Amino acid sequence: MTTMLAVTDVTADVCCTPLVREPLTADEAEQLATTMKALADPTRLRLLSIVAASEDSEACVCDLIEPVGLSQPTVSHHLKILTTAGFLTRSKRGTWAYFKLVPGALDRVSQLLVAS
Amino acid sequence: MTTMLAVTDVTADVCCTPLVREPLTADEAEQLATTMKALADPTRLRLLSIVAASEDSEACVCDLIEPVGLSQPTVSHHLKILTTAGFLTRSKRGTWAYFKLVPGALDRVSQLLVAS
Repeated sequence: MTTMLAVTDVTADVCCTPLVREPLTADEAEQLATTMKALADPTRLRLLSIVAASEDSEACVCDLIEPVGLSQPTVSHHLKILTTAGFLTRSKRGTWAYFKLVPGALDRVSQLLVAS
Repeated sequence: MTTMLAVTDVTADVCCTPLVREPLTADEAEQLATTMKALADPTRLRLLSIVAASEDSEACVCDLIEPVGLSQPTVSHHLKILTTAGFLTRSKRGTWAYFKLVPGALDRVSQLLVAS
């Protein structure tokens, strides 16, 4: 059985005008900073890149612990932050949780940073 | 007289493979997280977007204080972090410091986040 958990996708709230085009409002800046904070950690960036580079952009938490060399609770904590920020979705299959890259979530952030 | 100050451009060290393409190494993740930390603050994002949206992508610190509603030392502190991270350059003209967007710096970060 696959259980999909609801997530708060903060990336969906960050709209679409690149920040170089016109000054961000205070609210837009708060939202984008929250998203950036989820990415501003080396362990989370590594976890995200491992999941993204996996088959079907999905990985079992059991396969994420050894590559980053941290405890399972620590890895789960970082994965939860990435899930809350809307970059990953989590599903439980049997004993393990699986994390999958949300299509378009990184692209949305990328588009906010382009200068053109 | 225009005095250009040397900066440590961390964005130049972050190379070019999108993080979804292959797992980041620990060193790559550290470098990218440092860059992301500079962007993971609402005041810094607003300052960056105001500078970027200004004529010639340059603004006097004297014109950046009122829009963000913070003291000059606080604004200067945030501008220093953006300059150290390689997003802005600083030049002194007369009494005031001017900050200019570094061409390509945001684009480099943007390219690391694209999924395609």
